[in-house]
Amino acid sequence: MTYKNIVIAGGGTLGSQIAYMAAYSGKNTTIWGRSAGSLERAQARVAVWENEVQAYFKSSDASKQAAQEHLHYTTDLANALADADLVIEALPEDLATKEAFYREFAKLAPDKTVVVTNSSTLLPSSLAESTGRPAQFLGYHFANQIWRGNTAEIMAGPATDKTLVDSLVTFSHEIKMVPIVVKKEQAGYVLNSMLVPLLSSASQLWVDDIAEPSAIDKTWMIATGAPMGPFAIMDMVGMHTVYAINHANPDPKAQLIANKIKAMIDAGNIGVESGQGFYSYPNPAFQNANFLKA
Amino acid sequence: MTYKNIVIAGGGTLGSQIAYMAAYSGKNTTIWGRSAGSLERAQARVAVWENEVQAYFKSSDASKQAAQEHLHYTTDLANALADADLVIEALPEDLATKEAFYREFAKLAPDKTVVVTNSSTLLPSSLAESTGRPAQFLGYHFANQIWRGNTAEIMAGPATDKTLVDSLVTFSHEIKMVPIVVKKEQAGYVLNSMLVPLLSSASQLWVDDIAEPSAIDKTWMIATGAPMGPFAIMDMVGMHTVYAINHANPDPKAQLIANKIKAMIDAGNIGVESGQGFYSYPNPAFQNANFLKA
Repeated sequence: MTYKNIVIAGGGTLGSQIAYMAAYSGKNTTIWGRSAGSLERAQARVAVWENEVQAYFKSSDASKQAAQEHLHYTTDLANALADADLVIEALPEDLATKEAFYREFAKLAPDKTVVVTNSSTLLPSSLAESTGRPAQFLGYHFANQIWRGNTAEIMAGPATDKTLVDSLVTFSHEIKMVPIVVKKEQAGYVLNSMLVPLLSSASQLWVDDIAEPSAIDKTWMIATGAPMGPFAIMDMVGMHTVYAINHANPDPKAQLIANKIKAMIDAGNIGVESGQGFYSYPNPAFQNANFLKA
Repeated sequence: MTYKNIVIAGGGTLGSQIAYMAAYSGKNTTIWGRSAGSLERAQARVAVWENEVQAYFKSSDASKQAAQEHLHYTTDLANALADADLVIEALPEDLATKEAFYREFAKLAPDKTVVVTNSSTLLPSSLAESTGRPAQFLGYHFANQIWRGNTAEIMAGPATDKTLVDSLVTFSHEIKMVPIVVKKEQAGYVLNSMLVPLLSSASQLWVDDIAEPSAIDKTWMIATGAPMGPFAIMDMVGMHTVYAINHANPDPKAQLIANKIKAMIDAGNIGVESGQGFYSYPNPAFQNANFLKA
């Protein structure tokens, strides 16, 4: 076994999913949150994930019970870090928020502790100094619904001790993830470096009124055999994230896309979560047996 | 029924596939080729497609026999065009070659004949004048292995009579294709407008040595549920086409990709066709049951 005592900083969507999969895999896991309220929200999320994970792995009630016993919640960072082997930072995507956490971490964590960030937008090198231990710091990026989209992208920074890549490969297997080694720092890691161009090109066809979203998805699904096209993926990702990606892109074409996505958000059509995005849920049209036939 | 007498100009890979699916669907179909040699090669291709189509649709020997009776070959363009309802031009991707054909076509075809180009790189507007009938001319784009990747992208040019879009939608259904209406002229139609950015971004990760092709494909397959990643798709497309796309791209990064693809071609590793590309065939690693698990 690589790391035994795991601390997840932040119990949001991904933080709570990572924590649950670690606990489910037998790791002694603690979610640290800044307030009692944030921990309550984290517990509510975990209550959803534990059922989804049980259904996905068809696992027993006993293993669900065991996971609950491995999962702890605290607002006391000093206590959480006292014997931490691995800290996974999954705080909001805001440089100042993350730096403030790492400065506290640097004061409190024992020398042995390895620390990783689940940031999808900030590179390890931009955060390394604030951790106080750049050699023990890496990027470690998970995808949503981590039991299903179970890639764990491992990205060392220039100052990282490269032997830690191997230990995170092993740790990934231990918590049922497929490790993807990113050999150099790369904004977007591997997945988003490809997904963003696909979603952008599809969105461009839409805002230019070249074809309907359903026709674009159908083309993609037939040609590549994929179960979802780019607009179905955007519905899953959610319009807030799609908006943020386009809004942050200086290309004027991305602003046109952002404006159309903003109109969807204003109308409450944020994707799967709200029941309406490019498709209506449940039972979206692209899952209809005839969708690919006409 | 929309169009009954179909002429396919050019019996290359796609021309012979389109011709076969039209004949298989009961259309009176003629492949026109410039020489007896080109028609012999077309017949050899059709002999392959008829078995693949039979296996794909699990169809009877009788339907295979019927298709053979519906499919004719000629080098006599005047005769081929005499009663043509629809001409599908599938000649090499070369403006001068296509224009020369359309000028001959313009002299010989009856007024009723509608003509479409299967070009994936030339827009209808760039060829319309040479047809002598811009109002009866459209883009009509098929993907390789058209019985399986059965999208037929229909793209009117600015001068096209728009009612012809509807007749091509119906014709597409008649020959077992899924029609995709492209509402305005768009280089790359729908499919290649998305596929090229995906393949380019994946290739960029490869030439920048960010991750291994198999790790990149694995990431894509897990995240999107697709049966193939971008490097497996490139193997299927073939390195000659991948090279041509990158070589034609003025971006210096595309030239770096083109150079690495050229080295693969020089080594004989052109993809599925040669048994070796990014993967070895048959039984490529990405189809191994454990590929997505480790």
